[in-house]
Amino acid sequence: MVTKEQILNALSYVEEPDLKKDLVTLNMIQNIGIEGEKISFDVILTTPACPLKDHIEHACRNAIAHFIDKNLEVQINMTSNVIGKQGAQVSGIKNIILVSSGKGGVGKSTVAANLALALHTKGAKTGLLDADIYGPSLPIMFGLEGAKPGSVEMPDGQVKIEPLEKFGLKLLSIGFFTDPNQPIPWRGPMTTSAIKQLFNDAHWGELDYLVVDMPPGTGDIHITVSQTFPIAGAVIVTTPQQVALADAVKGIGMFLMDSINIPLLGVVENMAYFTPAELPDNKYYIFGKDGGKRLAEEYKVPFLGEIPLLKGISDAGDNGFPIAIDNEDPVTKSFLTIAEKVAQQLSIIHSQLK
Amino acid sequence: MVTKEQILNALSYVEEPDLKKDLVTLNMIQNIGIEGEKISFDVILTTPACPLKDHIEHACRNAIAHFIDKNLEVQINMTSNVIGKQGAQVSGIKNIILVSSGKGGVGKSTVAANLALALHTKGAKTGLLDADIYGPSLPIMFGLEGAKPGSVEMPDGQVKIEPLEKFGLKLLSIGFFTDPNQPIPWRGPMTTSAIKQLFNDAHWGELDYLVVDMPPGTGDIHITVSQTFPIAGAVIVTTPQQVALADAVKGIGMFLMDSINIPLLGVVENMAYFTPAELPDNKYYIFGKDGGKRLAEEYKVPFLGEIPLLKGISDAGDNGFPIAIDNEDPVTKSFLTIAEKVAQQLSIIHSQLK
Repeated sequence: MVTKEQILNALSYVEEPDLKKDLVTLNMIQNIGIEGEKISFDVILTTPACPLKDHIEHACRNAIAHFIDKNLEVQINMTSNVIGKQGAQVSGIKNIILVSSGKGGVGKSTVAANLALALHTKGAKTGLLDADIYGPSLPIMFGLEGAKPGSVEMPDGQVKIEPLEKFGLKLLSIGFFTDPNQPIPWRGPMTTSAIKQLFNDAHWGELDYLVVDMPPGTGDIHITVSQTFPIAGAVIVTTPQQVALADAVKGIGMFLMDSINIPLLGVVENMAYFTPAELPDNKYYIFGKDGGKRLAEEYKVPFLGEIPLLKGISDAGDNGFPIAIDNEDPVTKSFLTIAEKVAQQLSIIHSQLK
Repeated sequence: MVTKEQILNALSYVEEPDLKKDLVTLNMIQNIGIEGEKISFDVILTTPACPLKDHIEHACRNAIAHFIDKNLEVQINMTSNVIGKQGAQVSGIKNIILVSSGKGGVGKSTVAANLALALHTKGAKTGLLDADIYGPSLPIMFGLEGAKPGSVEMPDGQVKIEPLEKFGLKLLSIGFFTDPNQPIPWRGPMTTSAIKQLFNDAHWGELDYLVVDMPPGTGDIHITVSQTFPIAGAVIVTTPQQVALADAVKGIGMFLMDSINIPLLGVVENMAYFTPAELPDNKYYIFGKDGGKRLAEEYKVPFLGEIPLLKGISDAGDNGFPIAIDNEDPVTKSFLTIAEKVAQQLSIIHSQLK
């Protein structure tokens, strides 16, 4: 008869490759069940988007076979409990991820929306906050023009904004509260006060990840968000163009400043090349080549991936269906990989901070 | 013998098509010279970029031939004296033109730089002020990274910033005063104070046009610039993408607000389509088609032109040579036409305000 101790001993030889400790020490093995020759246990990963999920499951099976008995019937339930930034959380939000770019128009909103969808596809409870106060794109990208969030009364009597839900994501945008045809000529203090409300006065519920689509630049909103809320990390979006890279460097510089100090999760290169639909082998490097990759190398942050310039991506956003909801699209796969890398980086960062 | 009166009488039948008055009433005929059968005069246009220059010259010759004598030798000197916004001018700057976009990354800086160069090519004294405080592109676009403007002592003892000069333009950018690798995490009041200095504390000299590359959005800088300085008009840049158009509408709305009230000179559609160099007949409407044109129609403002998405334009900007300095490039012709239309709109607006 197999014992619980034998199972834990075997699994103590399985290392979590990112966190560099074994699964037992990391307290990732739970609910061990033994029925004769049939054993079962849960592996609690730090994120459902773990890119090493299959690798870890395989290593567990090997360890049981090697250290106990290769004839055991092993049932492994790969699950997750997303770890968040320790200490001050915004009411139930485990990880706030900023998607930022020095320069506007590099596809930041496209990356933010599709990253959020990809995290959701991987099984994480995810929200998307469009903090681009002067140019909110979320209402158009999710086909929610004219939609208005309702309100909800909390147990303590406080009334909060109820985020909208679509494609499984909780969604809020400053665009839901303003007339799309009217400008928002607000000075700094008004914008920062509006942003704080979208974080604090909304009923986000329990979220593993809240992806925040930041405005371009390094202005009032960045300073306020970075200094007011516990940000888990930032993703930098750039095109390969020199003028975009120059601004991305400034964005990176801001997150690295002592007074801000937000971990960089990596760089996404958007509009990497253009491929006409009828010439799938042609890659036109309209904005230059590998600029984002070089930027990531220079600042020693992970390169999360490149997204081509495709008419489909622009159309998808304009038509209210971000591309990552279409699982057949090859670009969706790129976003899933980016989501895995982002989640992986967060797990690594949190485990080092412990 | 021909008399001055005969010449003025003949030219009083020539109408300035934009200003809807005759050249004599508009005081556009100067320096009439008569030597036997040889007459000469200056036509003082309202801008050297007048798109009707040839048309007006031709009409003058016809009028002289028709009303006086078709055998006269007529020498016409087509010149110009740019008219500016009446009243408060910023020290010698006749027309301040804002180049703006709701959304970032639509090519606003490319349009601003090439519009300024095209106005210069047409013979106007032109400056370019890069007011995009969080993402200044001018230093890279003009190959002036690391360059520092000097200072100049004015007759009254005041010391002013001396704009740099390249390709015939007077140039200033916030980027000349900051470290390109450092972010500018400034809140609103700091940014507006910096911008005011670039207008007021610089020795711009006499300029027909100062083109201002505005930051994206509708924030502090827009409010300050619009309300502090006498702005002649604004050019809106957009891509055909729905999410860009939505922001462009907001930008237009801001300029039309009672408290701002800046004339719209027109809409430029950038990244209208992509054409691979080796497939010059292929047009890929990556971001959709004719969005800028429809926007202009909807708001009843002139459509100034469309600029394709070409690798050459991006490369040119990245390499310090805006495309409009290359007179062989077909895109240069587009920018020259845009410059003419902008100058034309300004002349019409000023003549109506008189």
